[in-house]
Amino acid sequence: MKKFLIFSLIFGLIFSCSNKSSDNMSPVVIQTDFGLTGSAIGAMYGVMYSVDENLPIFDLTHFIPPYGIWEGALALEETVEYWPEGTVFVSVVDPGVGTERKSVVLKTKSGHYFVTPDNGTLTFVADTYGVDEVREIDEAVNRRQNTEESYTFHGRDVYVYTGAKLAAGQISFEDVGKSLGTNVTLIPHEKPNYDNGTYKASLAGLDANFGNVWSLLPRKIMSENGVNAGDNIMVKIYKNDNLVFSGSMPIVNTFGDVADGENLAYFNSQLNLSFAVNMGSFVSKHGLTKYGLDSFGDWKIEVSKL
Amino acid sequence: MKKFLIFSLIFGLIFSCSNKSSDNMSPVVIQTDFGLTGSAIGAMYGVMYSVDENLPIFDLTHFIPPYGIWEGALALEETVEYWPEGTVFVSVVDPGVGTERKSVVLKTKSGHYFVTPDNGTLTFVADTYGVDEVREIDEAVNRRQNTEESYTFHGRDVYVYTGAKLAAGQISFEDVGKSLGTNVTLIPHEKPNYDNGTYKASLAGLDANFGNVWSLLPRKIMSENGVNAGDNIMVKIYKNDNLVFSGSMPIVNTFGDVADGENLAYFNSQLNLSFAVNMGSFVSKHGLTKYGLDSFGDWKIEVSKL
Amino acid sequence: MKKFLIFSLIFGLIFSCSNKSSDNMSPVVIQTDFGLTGSAIGAMYGVMYSVDENLPIFDLTHFIPPYGIWEGALALEETVEYWPEGTVFVSVVDPGVGTERKSVVLKTKSGHYFVTPDNGTLTFVADTYGVDEVREIDEAVNRRQNTEESYTFHGRDVYVYTGAKLAAGQISFEDVGKSLGTNVTLIPHEKPNYDNGTYKASLAGLDANFGNVWSLLPRKIMSENGVNAGDNIMVKIYKNDNLVFSGSMPIVNTFGDVADGENLAYFNSQLNLSFAVNMGSFVSKHGLTKYGLDSFGDWKIEVSKL
Repeated sequence: MKKFLIFSLIFGLIFSCSNKSSDNMSPVVIQTDFGLTGSAIGAMYGVMYSVDENLPIFDLTHFIPPYGIWEGALALEETVEYWPEGTVFVSVVDPGVGTERKSVVLKTKSGHYFVTPDNGTLTFVADTYGVDEVREIDEAVNRRQNTEESYTFHGRDVYVYTGAKLAAGQISFEDVGKSLGTNVTLIPHEKPNYDNGTYKASLAGLDANFGNVWSLLPRKIMSENGVNAGDNIMVKIYKNDNLVFSGSMPIVNTFGDVADGENLAYFNSQLNLSFAVNMGSFVSKHGLTKYGLDSFGDWKIEVSKL
Repeated sequence: MKKFLIFSLIFGLIFSCSNKSSDNMSPVVIQTDFGLTGSAIGAMYGVMYSVDENLPIFDLTHFIPPYGIWEGALALEETVEYWPEGTVFVSVVDPGVGTERKSVVLKTKSGHYFVTPDNGTLTFVADTYGVDEVREIDEAVNRRQNTEESYTFHGRDVYVYTGAKLAAGQISFEDVGKSLGTNVTLIPHEKPNYDNGTYKASLAGLDANFGNVWSLLPRKIMSENGVNAGDNIMVKIYKNDNLVFSGSMPIVNTFGDVADGENLAYFNSQLNLSFAVNMGSFVSKHGLTKYGLDSFGDWKIEVSKL
Repeated sequence: MKKFLIFSLIFGLIFSCSNKSSDNMSPVVIQTDFGLTGSAIGAMYGVMYSVDENLPIFDLTHFIPPYGIWEGALALEETVEYWPEGTVFVSVVDPGVGTERKSVVLKTKSGHYFVTPDNGTLTFVADTYGVDEVREIDEAVNRRQNTEESYTFHGRDVYVYTGAKLAAGQISFEDVGKSLGTNVTLIPHEKPNYDNGTYKASLAGLDANFGNVWSLLPRKIMSENGVNAGDNIMVKIYKNDNLVFSGSMPIVNTFGDVADGENLAYFNSQLNLSFAVNMGSFVSKHGLTKYGLDSFGDWKIEVSKL
């Protein structure tokens, strides 16, 4: 009897200890286009903390440009590989809030989850990691109580709420809502390709702090066809099929391989071909801002070896 | 004797386990007007971490405009309902630092705590949640050691330090300092009202990312008097009693209910009447910036049903 | 036998409980010049979380100006004292990424660790806290697996990875790599001094939100030589030895001691002499922006008592 009592106590204790840690939880990683001004993000943290006070909560970024589905889609794709299987990403970039776009959770073949409006934000994640299944969030169940009257803040009332419950293990993926199979909305863009000496790809975006230009052309495609660091290349940049930059430059391993102020090409942290000016800004030097650096699906590059 | 030993061990263990988690702690949620440049916020995190390494620490925002007591007062009020009872909010918006304004902790009737200079920042929290009691921080006790010579950083040396100790359970509310009853400094503003077909209220502020204008007029007052989504309204906006905008627009549930570039009214996530332009900026379209969008107590709206 | 079993269980339990908390860990505090746009910071969080999911992770700031070694060096120094011994700071301000600058971990005599490129970022930490030992990061060991092909993101692949492993206790300081003794790269700057009635020091930087100017002249040197709050001083500010401001002002304890719009001197939260305009901007009022407020080693002050 005494033995039984002691073992009960010990097992109760084990159970209570493990409940207190975040051992059975996945992290939630959130991105929005809200910026950090105002109370929106603080409210979202509170919703997640209220779901489970031990939930690990991280920011990806809150500085996706307003309505920047392209940029949000890229930021998600770039981040996935650094987080473990089971991580729940929540993305709230939602120009169509209140319209008929669906609210979904996508599970990749890598076992990561993405909670988001289905508006193209999942394009690059789907390309790179593959879609295991998409489920539509059933808002009759997966919505904060007493928020039915609030029309505009799905980020707080549906997306982080559902993401937090999924990460905390309070609901399963199946509990999210009905399956949509592997269907997900994709943004049109030119997939990287090589033909007859010319590489083509869309631009990815800008390193706004340094004025570098990133493309979506992977080093792998180039090296497979014999172009590597050390080679000189001719680079043409088009906006809506108009040539806005043309010039030659070396592909370097380090910015310091060219003089200050000189053009260079390099592979960025995503290992995609990118363009910079050593100790300067490629964007400013070549006046790219005036073409509207905001809709990168409209920007394309052509690259050939010299 | 053996029984006693075992029970002692077990209870010691329970105690040590629960000490290691954040189970007996409340979260600290901080807002400032410091921005995220420089080392101030990093120092404040360090002070809180040093009080208790398991304390849950969250940011509300650090982008309250410099000296923006109005904006700070609103951000606090908007956030409270998403956090559990016991949460300790710390607000450091302090144009009067070093003057005779008091440092206080307010407890609302909802059981939330607010650590702040008593300069009006508590106006809307007091209105909405009710004041249970206000206590003046006794800096002889509730101040980091060896900081008596630092005149300017109360945020770090007094406010987050006191907030962290309160949230960690190291001091009680009574330990903060002497009671001031329910007295708290309030900012003058026009309370929302309805009379003879006209609704009046102050503006609340701006959604700076999207150029929307928020008022403090609750949907509830409007619906009680027969104005609802779907209705058309006449909106007049005044700055210091000068008319700076006048126009009609529908109250919509979703921005997409009007054409791109058209005016609309909607209820924001606080369920207050707000004004926007679909896929555009209400502020830019109507040139409101030139009137000085920074002192919202001076801005008022009049709304009537068409 | 039963006793043995029970004690085994209890000690196993103690061990498993303490593993689940962050009790044996130090916090990681990171600063970069990346800003919060894009996915870089979210990837770095993921790398640290993947090292140990219970690691306490904090931001110092991500708004060090691009390539701002001076500002990064100051931000580190200003923050150290608020964090406990053992804290691991990671700084990624790295204009020389990919060049031959070394990657190091510095341990101060105070027992804090700093993971950074050795490019001057450690200047003020070394001055104030003293160097116990510097070790060069052995990237053959202390680098994320499969990142050998990524040339540009040392912040993610080496610095936060090594910092996280050190803070989590997965490697010791000795495991970082070979000792460099106490050698560390220092930025030239004028050390604060007093001679024949004149105090000299470098400027530290700006409080960008409020337009205040900070120097590196400590209150202690002034008070030891008879200058204190309440005194009037003559202040001269030089950029590259050109006089760009000259004027008298009182040293005050609180900004409100002078009228709105008036100059004042005060001791900032670092207890260094600083210059401000009550309810205004010292920088704007005196047109300092046009001299290029970005290279503070080139700015010096001379102060004398009136």
